[in-house]
Amino acid sequence: MILVGIDPGSQYTGYGVVRRDGSKLTCVDHGRFSLPSKAPVPERLGRLSEHLSRLLDQTCPSAVAVESVFHGVNTRSLVVLAQARGAILAELGRRQLDCHEYSPSEVKRAVTGSGRAHKDQVARMVKLLLNLRGGKFSADATDALAVAVCLANSLRVERIRDAAART
Amino acid sequence: MILVGIDPGSQYTGYGVVRRDGSKLTCVDHGRFSLPSKAPVPERLGRLSEHLSRLLDQTCPSAVAVESVFHGVNTRSLVVLAQARGAILAELGRRQLDCHEYSPSEVKRAVTGSGRAHKDQVARMVKLLLNLRGGKFSADATDALAVAVCLANSLRVERIRDAAART
Repeated sequence: MILVGIDPGSQYTGYGVVRRDGSKLTCVDHGRFSLPSKAPVPERLGRLSEHLSRLLDQTCPSAVAVESVFHGVNTRSLVVLAQARGAILAELGRRQLDCHEYSPSEVKRAVTGSGRAHKDQVARMVKLLLNLRGGKFSADATDALAVAVCLANSLRVERIRDAAART
Repeated sequence: MILVGIDPGSQYTGYGVVRRDGSKLTCVDHGRFSLPSKAPVPERLGRLSEHLSRLLDQTCPSAVAVESVFHGVNTRSLVVLAQARGAILAELGRRQLDCHEYSPSEVKRAVTGSGRAHKDQVARMVKLLLNLRGGKFSADATDALAVAVCLANSLRVERIRDAAART
């Protein structure tokens, strides 16, 4: 089962692709979509949508999770981030993908056990959980992999709960 | 020259399509995209994106204008509207269309002469300017037609200014 985590940002949108085999998680791909910072908004969002579309074509995920990023930002940043989310969610919706949303604290808790963990703790735990060694990982990519791990955990919990309800 | 005006909303997104021949404007199409109010956000935005995509395929506009709608709304509404705008702008960006943005007061001023005109004054002036008689027009559709009229006017002003600069 392929799962994709997305961490939307105003300039970079991180993505992380993991494969789940039972309880084992492995990293398939990770990175970030860079958007031309001085381009007009439609061009930026169009590029974001195209990058995402290509990633989804290549990976054919069973489910996708997007981090909600609306806490503690000013109105201008809120609009920029919400527009990026709109572009992402529209592409997921057009493909009728199984979509999930997690807050930053839910993602941190799923990966580190604490909803208040720092970014570097999250990155370290993601690398441990996915057995990633060496190589360069942008913070956007590890954040997005954390979202994918959070998705994998919550789907596993759901499955166990559903199985228990049936017995 | 075909011009499209879009008035994004949380439940309905109005659209208006006008044809400009010289200084003459005629209405080609108008209406609103209804989004399933209880559906998950990705499904709503996916539908919005698909509706818009179909409209753009049918009308092949030379330029599109979207109303900015961020004044005097609370944070939740702001996020909902910005996400809808994100879905719309991403589709326009992917098609590399000539995109414009106008504030509600710019649209009102272009149509009625006053940036503070009421909705019914805007609707009345839009019907007069486009010679629309009878028929039912939703407020979303007349607002979107007003955005298209605003776009037509501002492109005309730009053209005249460019011509004057060349002489």
